[in-house]
Amino acid sequence: MKKLAILGSTGSIGTQTLDVVRNNPDLFSVSVLSCASKLDVIRRQIDEFHPEMVVLANEKDALEMEKDYPGICFEFGNIGLEAAASSDCDMVVNALMGIKGLAPTYHAILAGHEIAFANKETLVAGGALIMGMAHKCGVSLLPVDSEHSAIFQCLQGNPVQRVKRIIITASGGPFRGYSLEQLENVTLEQAMKHPKWNMGPKITIDSATLMNKGLEVIEASWLFDMPLEKISVVVHPQSIIHSMVEYEDNSIIAQMGFPDMRVPIGYALSYPDRLPNDLPSLKRFEKAPELSFELPDMETFKCMKLALDAMKAGGSYTAALNGANEALVQYFLKGRIRFIDIQNMLDEVMQHHKPIYKLDLPDILRVDRDARVAVKMLVERS
Amino acid sequence: MKKLAILGSTGSIGTQTLDVVRNNPDLFSVSVLSCASKLDVIRRQIDEFHPEMVVLANEKDALEMEKDYPGICFEFGNIGLEAAASSDCDMVVNALMGIKGLAPTYHAILAGHEIAFANKETLVAGGALIMGMAHKCGVSLLPVDSEHSAIFQCLQGNPVQRVKRIIITASGGPFRGYSLEQLENVTLEQAMKHPKWNMGPKITIDSATLMNKGLEVIEASWLFDMPLEKISVVVHPQSIIHSMVEYEDNSIIAQMGFPDMRVPIGYALSYPDRLPNDLPSLKRFEKAPELSFELPDMETFKCMKLALDAMKAGGSYTAALNGANEALVQYFLKGRIRFIDIQNMLDEVMQHHKPIYKLDLPDILRVDRDARVAVKMLVERS
Repeated sequence: MKKLAILGSTGSIGTQTLDVVRNNPDLFSVSVLSCASKLDVIRRQIDEFHPEMVVLANEKDALEMEKDYPGICFEFGNIGLEAAASSDCDMVVNALMGIKGLAPTYHAILAGHEIAFANKETLVAGGALIMGMAHKCGVSLLPVDSEHSAIFQCLQGNPVQRVKRIIITASGGPFRGYSLEQLENVTLEQAMKHPKWNMGPKITIDSATLMNKGLEVIEASWLFDMPLEKISVVVHPQSIIHSMVEYEDNSIIAQMGFPDMRVPIGYALSYPDRLPNDLPSLKRFEKAPELSFELPDMETFKCMKLALDAMKAGGSYTAALNGANEALVQYFLKGRIRFIDIQNMLDEVMQHHKPIYKLDLPDILRVDRDARVAVKMLVERS
Repeated sequence: MKKLAILGSTGSIGTQTLDVVRNNPDLFSVSVLSCASKLDVIRRQIDEFHPEMVVLANEKDALEMEKDYPGICFEFGNIGLEAAASSDCDMVVNALMGIKGLAPTYHAILAGHEIAFANKETLVAGGALIMGMAHKCGVSLLPVDSEHSAIFQCLQGNPVQRVKRIIITASGGPFRGYSLEQLENVTLEQAMKHPKWNMGPKITIDSATLMNKGLEVIEASWLFDMPLEKISVVVHPQSIIHSMVEYEDNSIIAQMGFPDMRVPIGYALSYPDRLPNDLPSLKRFEKAPELSFELPDMETFKCMKLALDAMKAGGSYTAALNGANEALVQYFLKGRIRFIDIQNMLDEVMQHHKPIYKLDLPDILRVDRDARVAVKMLVERS
């Protein structure tokens, strides 16, 4: 029985992780649940999964809910998440969104916990620190992102020194094929309609701007210790092939399937086993479909290029990129800026970033805050 | 340095195996070369690779060539092949075509030699015997067929008990989409033009009749210990995906690449490593191509169905199927029968086959001979 501490249990990845747990009650139990704001959802999760600890965003909610669950330890805020990440368990599922996953990841690694990892912003902002620590502590980060899970699956049983390149696939998002002029006028509603995946709002907007692919390239570079030159992105609108690895013998191993996050989540939880599930089998081959491929348009969708440039520049550039992007996406979700402003303002923030190198945890968090302040000033001026 | 005994060194697989050896002189040496009739080719191979033993088809050729190579041991015929298979080496490359690979495989296993295996007819005719022996002697058969190499690659690092099905891809051959009426009139020249792979004549005709996929399903069933119900065939005309494995978590692992036999040969020779080569990388993803899939037409192309039926029936049925098919393909290559006669006559031979069960090596060879006699009588009567 594997005891899971699930950070971010009411989000898209969190609820799907609980689906996997629900379908495998003899394999997994839940020791920690956590959420920021969906208090009604987490109450139902507590009733069903009986965790030992629950982390909420603020003290008031924690004190109030504690009354209804006398046997459960309630914590709150960042300190609560860090305590949860260090608590007694067999695996931490980091399903947090954004930079707030960084410190809990750090503490989970310090505690020696294996991590099912769905929090790419943490590696974008603090890849050097986190992977260095994970290596030192002998902790595995098992990828949950569908692309990184695919890559991880395609690496199994293969000589890593023979990898020629990683090929990350991209759906292209809802605005694939749009010109810069067309991007000027897209709405929030259009941006929220991802053609293939059902995901949280932040990653859905990142998918529409193609920033998500930039973040994924950076995450892959850290997770699999691959230089950027060995990572390609191809747009594959059907989202059937989730990513591939090409080896030096010119053989390519690909992972495919119906696009459903419960497959990569299940793999991270059960690795190296594979758990049966009741998801649809890929009947695609019986239906005479076609799989197509094209290169991403990084001229129009500048975010991806900005991300790759930040990774090449190194140091604090990616932490600034991530912080600025998170802030910009929030402003867009609130209707304060246009879709096209995300990439234009990000470009401006990055141009003015003053880099620092060899960052520790407080450095990263400071760079993140500074980038958000820079965004705030741009938005208020606009 | 891995010492290779290459049986069938002048055929398509044999010469490509020598290409791999030539490109990796520090990894492989050649202890045995063998051929049936291309005496000029094998002389050049001897000069280049300096084997310890050479096996020719008949005594006369062996005695004559021996004079020119005083340091080399010359053998001939089936006994020679068996001696070569048992000779001191690190790996036997069985690149023989047809049933004549059966006894050498048997002897290589007895000698405890790892086998790079490109001789599907041996497993079709004698799968139970050969795999039983290999299991008992702890000998690995490393697949060289592109489809079986793909499956083998897709199984690496995965739990074999979680395999849901193997999906073998088929190009569909030169007559894909043809009706039975159209098949009546196809010529030898048309049948020899395989759309994707450059192969020997027997397998090229088997690909045109789709018998090749039937033989491959049977081979996969034996090699990977999978029941027929867990093996599907999909036509994939681009021949980019060489085969796939679907797991119980509904994840599919696929192997892809430019269609060139030196990739699977290299993998079998270097497994579990992957050797760099100078073959083209699959640039397909940068060229906006499409990959398509459809089901095979087993109504029109009856050979595949006859093969699956033979495997289901068990016992000597597959040995009879293989012997009859080999004979029919030879008659077709000599212009004695029409393309459509292959499947019709095969059907007739199979209908009259009197099965035996639990076959030993002489049994299999006898069933094979009887099937060829049955074909001969049909052809002479026609």
